[in-house]
Amino acid sequence: MRLVAGIAEKMASNQKQIAISEFFEKNKHFLGFDSLPRSIITAVKEAVDNSLDACEEARILPDIHIKISKIDSKKDILELVSEDNGPGIPQTSIEKVFGQLLFGSRFHAIRQSRGQQGIGITGVVMYSQLTTGKSTHVLSKIASEPTATSVKIGLDTRKNKAVKSEQNRIIWENEDLTLKEHGLRVTTRMKGKYQRGRQSVFQYLRMTSIVNPHAEITFIDPDGERFHWPRVTERLPTKVDSIKPHPHGIELGQLQRMCRDSKDSRLSVFLRQNFSGVSMRAAKELCEAAELDVSVKPKSMKPDDVRALLEAFQGERMVSGKIVKLLAPPTTCLSPIEEMLIKKGLSKTIDSKFIATMTRAPSVSHGNPFQVEVGLIFGEGMAGDKHVEVLRFANRVPLMYQQGGCLLTKAIESIDWRQYGLEQAGGRGVPKGPAAILVHLASTNVQFTSEAKEALSDNSNVFEETRKAMLEMGRGLRKHLEKKKKMAKTREKFELINDILPAIAEKSASILDRPVPDLSGSITRIMSAVICNETTEWNKETKQTNVSITLFNYTSRARSYSVLVNWPEKAGGEMVGNERGGRKEAMGIWGWKIETLEPGTQAIIEYSLSNLEKGDWTETDVFFRGSQDVIGATKLDEKMLEEIRRLEDAFKEVDDVVSDDGADGASSFDPGVVDGDSGQTTLFGGDV
Amino acid sequence: MRLVAGIAEKMASNQKQIAISEFFEKNKHFLGFDSLPRSIITAVKEAVDNSLDACEEARILPDIHIKISKIDSKKDILELVSEDNGPGIPQTSIEKVFGQLLFGSRFHAIRQSRGQQGIGITGVVMYSQLTTGKSTHVLSKIASEPTATSVKIGLDTRKNKAVKSEQNRIIWENEDLTLKEHGLRVTTRMKGKYQRGRQSVFQYLRMTSIVNPHAEITFIDPDGERFHWPRVTERLPTKVDSIKPHPHGIELGQLQRMCRDSKDSRLSVFLRQNFSGVSMRAAKELCEAAELDVSVKPKSMKPDDVRALLEAFQGERMVSGKIVKLLAPPTTCLSPIEEMLIKKGLSKTIDSKFIATMTRAPSVSHGNPFQVEVGLIFGEGMAGDKHVEVLRFANRVPLMYQQGGCLLTKAIESIDWRQYGLEQAGGRGVPKGPAAILVHLASTNVQFTSEAKEALSDNSNVFEETRKAMLEMGRGLRKHLEKKKKMAKTREKFELINDILPAIAEKSASILDRPVPDLSGSITRIMSAVICNETTEWNKETKQTNVSITLFNYTSRARSYSVLVNWPEKAGGEMVGNERGGRKEAMGIWGWKIETLEPGTQAIIEYSLSNLEKGDWTETDVFFRGSQDVIGATKLDEKMLEEIRRLEDAFKEVDDVVSDDGADGASSFDPGVVDGDSGQTTLFGGDV
Repeated sequence: MRLVAGIAEKMASNQKQIAISEFFEKNKHFLGFDSLPRSIITAVKEAVDNSLDACEEARILPDIHIKISKIDSKKDILELVSEDNGPGIPQTSIEKVFGQLLFGSRFHAIRQSRGQQGIGITGVVMYSQLTTGKSTHVLSKIASEPTATSVKIGLDTRKNKAVKSEQNRIIWENEDLTLKEHGLRVTTRMKGKYQRGRQSVFQYLRMTSIVNPHAEITFIDPDGERFHWPRVTERLPTKVDSIKPHPHGIELGQLQRMCRDSKDSRLSVFLRQNFSGVSMRAAKELCEAAELDVSVKPKSMKPDDVRALLEAFQGERMVSGKIVKLLAPPTTCLSPIEEMLIKKGLSKTIDSKFIATMTRAPSVSHGNPFQVEVGLIFGEGMAGDKHVEVLRFANRVPLMYQQGGCLLTKAIESIDWRQYGLEQAGGRGVPKGPAAILVHLASTNVQFTSEAKEALSDNSNVFEETRKAMLEMGRGLRKHLEKKKKMAKTREKFELINDILPAIAEKSASILDRPVPDLSGSITRIMSAVICNETTEWNKETKQTNVSITLFNYTSRARSYSVLVNWPEKAGGEMVGNERGGRKEAMGIWGWKIETLEPGTQAIIEYSLSNLEKGDWTETDVFFRGSQDVIGATKLDEKMLEEIRRLEDAFKEVDDVVSDDGADGASSFDPGVVDGDSGQTTLFGGDV
Repeated sequence: MRLVAGIAEKMASNQKQIAISEFFEKNKHFLGFDSLPRSIITAVKEAVDNSLDACEEARILPDIHIKISKIDSKKDILELVSEDNGPGIPQTSIEKVFGQLLFGSRFHAIRQSRGQQGIGITGVVMYSQLTTGKSTHVLSKIASEPTATSVKIGLDTRKNKAVKSEQNRIIWENEDLTLKEHGLRVTTRMKGKYQRGRQSVFQYLRMTSIVNPHAEITFIDPDGERFHWPRVTERLPTKVDSIKPHPHGIELGQLQRMCRDSKDSRLSVFLRQNFSGVSMRAAKELCEAAELDVSVKPKSMKPDDVRALLEAFQGERMVSGKIVKLLAPPTTCLSPIEEMLIKKGLSKTIDSKFIATMTRAPSVSHGNPFQVEVGLIFGEGMAGDKHVEVLRFANRVPLMYQQGGCLLTKAIESIDWRQYGLEQAGGRGVPKGPAAILVHLASTNVQFTSEAKEALSDNSNVFEETRKAMLEMGRGLRKHLEKKKKMAKTREKFELINDILPAIAEKSASILDRPVPDLSGSITRIMSAVICNETTEWNKETKQTNVSITLFNYTSRARSYSVLVNWPEKAGGEMVGNERGGRKEAMGIWGWKIETLEPGTQAIIEYSLSNLEKGDWTETDVFFRGSQDVIGATKLDEKMLEEIRRLEDAFKEVDDVVSDDGADGASSFDPGVVDGDSGQTTLFGGDV
């Protein structure tokens, strides 16, 4: 075959540079604008994510208002108004934030945040312009200026630049005519379809409120109906710090670039100042392992030097046969929701009897800190013959699409839920039953399958952590179900004996005209069990949670026990009115000794928990040490108690080390411990 | 809460522009580099896609060599060499093609192509550099120059610019020391893991060869093992033309931009020259519907004018109560594989008894032409108790990941395959059985769920077309299975009677010492059926496909039939040696009249097909008109024949209209016909 000369040149002459905005306009489905119902959800999501991120950074308790109106039902045109009480955006930045793709502050920062790429809200402006030809109106007030900026923003997609119009300054008043101190309002018109159901704006906001219990969210739907999710805690999420990259997460190309761009004069200083987890000693040891002088100038390092340094990072080059130990990256870049708040969020939106939650200790994947949290609701008012509802979240943002393709779902599916009392065909897949499973990944680098941020891509470390969290929580569910079952049986027997035996005795006595006999001995013989009854109740007058534990001895012999309970010590609870005393057995575990419990008698332990809010603590786990089983309590596993004590010490050490990151010669910490199977406060089970 | 003044300013000061290359480096999993095994597959895929696209455009039969070697097993470093005989790339373009993201020729072109965004191969260069620090070596020879360019390409990710080194001109020789006329060789080193199995380089190349039967592909794996998929046709895929956007696929923002950028002086000219499907009459009518003068200058149109024009496009504004009819977009922008080639490709790689294929007529979604093709293999050598293998393709590129999340899989899952002889729990999901299902979407705008191009995002038009194609093919499978079953039974009976009856008769006659009786009457009475036997066989000497159809009348009465067959008329076959004559009944359908078929006699129809290659045509469908059923043939559905004739006319009309696109007053064509349920040549069933 003879090729026509010049075809290569002709083909090349057609090539040209494409702007990122042209790319995303053509591929708008990458950004979540692939169907009319989804487009409006995406727009709400981008606006709300930005509001929550900005409020969190500015340490403001967010108050968010969303309103959707139908402008033209026939043509599916909707108007979205999103308003917050955040810090606002200075006038000069508005056009870049709203009119320029890939413009943002969080791209290079290693810390947990909702938005990262600087694409989201500009995508909304672009989609609105494309589908309705309209620009987006932005009203922004910052605290340091007396008036607000009002401006319309469009997008020149060929150049990825904003097109600004009608800019002026106005006075922004609240509904009560007071001046708005700071905040942002975005008004935009787009093609979209408002729908109800599992994938809807309503559901998105409901799920957002679960994992952002510090936010106040109001939503007015196109029919004018008003929905309100109140704030359930005044506690803002922990402030997150940006951290430096960890040597374990660095690729060669990246390290080359860092060296090339470095202005440091010494390699040891470069290592200390540009990476997390590198103490002065570690920096020296890394240089030694890589056979490089500490005083070498990073900028002048040759390719082989950089490669040697990377090999030292990865433990492929050692110092006298030992891998250079690095500190784990600090976890102050993460802000988990924490168990009690998840519980609150869940109970706020879903009525249910049993809630278990589990926050794993932070872990590290390729140098990126991450943390998994799970929650499970089980009980009345939920369909029993359907798949359990799966609520997925990443950095406090609900994930609503592509459930099947998401790593978090795969972790749920990999567990045999039948052993935890849920139905599941073949022990694989999403289980069935009256339950909902919540799973939250907090990470400095959430890897989505696409820019539409709907599903997490595969990562074996995150998968394993999620599995472990689920398994632990599942054990809690099983224990809860077993306990309930056992208690119900015993209570039935107890009521039978306590009600019917005396009635028969009384009847017999009256017929025979004899005195009613004392039956306590008989009852004891028939029951032949030690029973524990626990109540945990909120007292709205004292604002305290009252806990009462009663131990009945229905056996014929005297008994001796240690009784232990879990309590929210780490979450800041305080134990008051504990007249029986006892002692701390481990973090969050308190114990009492009951020396002698005579047959037919009972012992009562009572205390209150202060410094908590309603709903923070609704059930107490009771454990016992002793030879005779106690119905309604769990026999203490001493190994677990040991484990809790050990982990407590380890965490303390990490905290010390991390806060001491700057000091030379800080005790080194094997990252293996952080990567390991290290549950934090709930080793006793899930229904904490 | 009082906000710290200046927080908004502080937050804004951290914001900056991110380069597209930084974006994709951080999100390399968006490009398919999310795990080591997948990264090497992605790299091969990008190289092969580019080679096939370039060869197709330059009209060269591709010859592609892929070699993967292990450079460092411990560190998972692989070297990939990819070489083709394509047109090559001119020296000045190499750095942009390999070192600059979003640079390419196909982004704005509306036509079927593998690559589109100008991201793929640059992504490979970027990933290689990131993981091994190495630049990628490119060797390129174009026909018009005597020597080849040799150059190393890296990437400055901060600027999205190539970094070029070691550029020089060399003489490029083939293995036999002749000069290489034109072609490209890419050599790159990256982190990756070579694996075998369902998701592997081997499987990717095997699938690529199925849907690119015109390509010759050679692969040398890291163990030095050599795999070869030969070319099975010399026919290059149809040359595709770029088309202009169709008014039905335009968004308002896009139309605004087109008007703004227009240099046309008259709206009518603008409409005729910038859109497909707009005849001069339609252009005038659109202006009338939008209440705009034909002589208005597009550049000076007001927003409301543009909106009115779009409403006319969408049929919301009419002319005297009628929607302005537009021509369907030309389908010369598509290049389907076509049934016979799919069959060849499938039989080349999978041994099997039965292959059905189905190419639907082109359809249109939001102004974008697309076409669905499906294939099904059923038979021996395949596991019967497993899920059928699903082979997904888009624009001749295999899709290997995210099967569950892909539109094409969803279409397969939506069909009740039980009615077509496959097992399927609950009539939903991927069926089980000894089969493989192939599905190919050819489209000018393939919408993937992400830039990694692994799954198609939802689109109701494509979904419906795929479903229809599957249903039609499924019917073919059912017919085939029924026919086989019926034929097997009849043959058994036939053999029983023909072998055993005469044997008994002979035995009886010899015992009784009587002459052997004539049993033909008895056999006829016992069989009481008309049987058709069809053979279609390749004759390697004449290079023709011989078809023979025999009709046996085993009933006691004379019969009269019309016998019809399908034959590859559209694919260019020629019917020769057809001594019985007969006549064309429709495109691809030939018929003969058999006036009288006496009891106990047979009629034979014989002909040959020339101008085909081996394997092009392996089975002939036989239909009949007549009152008595014929075992082994299908009763003709006259309505279907009518439908074929009608469609044939319609297609002819479209072809005329499209080729006459330029002329004023061309007969208008209702796009409904193109969107409708219009199978092309296989309405008689699937096993064609």
